[in-house]
Amino acid sequence: MEKFLVKEHERVDNLHICGLKIIQNENFFRYGTDAVLLSWMAGNKISDGAKIADLGTGSGIIPILLAGSKNVMVHGLELQENVADMAQRSIKLNGLVDKIKIFEGDIKNPPIEMQKHTYDIVVTNPPYMTGQGGLKNKNIEKTISRHEMFCSLEDVLAAAKGLLKTKGRFFMVHRPQRMVGIFCAMRNNKIEPKRLIMVKPHANKLPNMILIEGIKEAGPGILMEEDIVVYNADGGYTSQILEIYGK
Amino acid sequence: MEKFLVKEHERVDNLHICGLKIIQNENFFRYGTDAVLLSWMAGNKISDGAKIADLGTGSGIIPILLAGSKNVMVHGLELQENVADMAQRSIKLNGLVDKIKIFEGDIKNPPIEMQKHTYDIVVTNPPYMTGQGGLKNKNIEKTISRHEMFCSLEDVLAAAKGLLKTKGRFFMVHRPQRMVGIFCAMRNNKIEPKRLIMVKPHANKLPNMILIEGIKEAGPGILMEEDIVVYNADGGYTSQILEIYGK
Repeated sequence: MEKFLVKEHERVDNLHICGLKIIQNENFFRYGTDAVLLSWMAGNKISDGAKIADLGTGSGIIPILLAGSKNVMVHGLELQENVADMAQRSIKLNGLVDKIKIFEGDIKNPPIEMQKHTYDIVVTNPPYMTGQGGLKNKNIEKTISRHEMFCSLEDVLAAAKGLLKTKGRFFMVHRPQRMVGIFCAMRNNKIEPKRLIMVKPHANKLPNMILIEGIKEAGPGILMEEDIVVYNADGGYTSQILEIYGK
Repeated sequence: MEKFLVKEHERVDNLHICGLKIIQNENFFRYGTDAVLLSWMAGNKISDGAKIADLGTGSGIIPILLAGSKNVMVHGLELQENVADMAQRSIKLNGLVDKIKIFEGDIKNPPIEMQKHTYDIVVTNPPYMTGQGGLKNKNIEKTISRHEMFCSLEDVLAAAKGLLKTKGRFFMVHRPQRMVGIFCAMRNNKIEPKRLIMVKPHANKLPNMILIEGIKEAGPGILMEEDIVVYNADGGYTSQILEIYGK
């Protein structure tokens, strides 16, 4: 089956979780610890039968991790046609076509199939860098996935607000430097930040990632949770990470 | 000299920093680690001759710590007449009357002596609890110092905005749970959050305090700095805290 689903410059990676696999293209943005930690955080709060949207789904990593381990329906929205096509083939490869639908479209104007105010959960691993910031990559696909060229934080939050039910949960991974803008954009869109986890590469390093949970139309008050440390001093994964990866 | 300055229910405490002392009243709010850490954070960014305002100065602990160790002019603003009077006597006790002025007044309408847009630094250890939240104390003085009865976060930030010069620095200590409201109130008042330090009672506990630095009219982007841990496993202060306390 794989040989019919995999195109030039692509490869199949084993996710080492529930026997899941993913097709990735060497020229596109490839998933990282960010997507796995975000899926773990959201996964802990998912009820049976939940309806989930993933904004900017890329390779489809988050829908595959969630639908591959839980009884949920996930809609992944991806702007780039060739990236959406690859995600669609990964869904087939994992036999998840009944639980995941990939839509090609713009989060600023989601397709009508993604009905307003019907989602229990919205997850997103959006571009981290502002239009101006950071080195732009020569691959347009990577640049669109990393830089806010076609969607700003405000666009992401406005889309989440539109899709979520009242009291629906929003999960995002981002950079600590952007925390203030994230919180303000969330509040502006009536998604109150309720939980915050700092992710540090090593115990004695500063965080380089934040995981955030918001609840639509909740009251104020945020809980800082225990930091996640990715690597031990010896360079191996910490027991925290191994547990999250289900090992 | 002390016996003329100290009233009933009051005592003189040694600050163990630069030979400084402070008068405290057993019925009023007494300073904690919060005020010392805030003074340390602000103190690291103070230039010679800086003009500083402390909003809600209470016992005068922050002006005394700053003016007691640096060449600065500090104006402390305190709403409560009896608390302001006690702070004034502490200033005399430390021989700091030339470097500190205590004004009795409301931060919503600072006295004309506190001229707009003339301060290099504004510091504040404001009430942590909203009007409704937490147990109210039977002492009205303590309740006013702890609860946002007479000044909301928005009032504090509006006052800071009015007093600071462009690019002036704002330092605040508060509770982690309030982080979102703090960041939004800061941005609303053009004081951009630029540094954030989490303070944990023990290394394996969640933070119970945050230290924030903002800069008036700065661009976005916040730096998370190394956490401060207050106590070792054996219950003694950590080397980090002893260094801050100058020991």
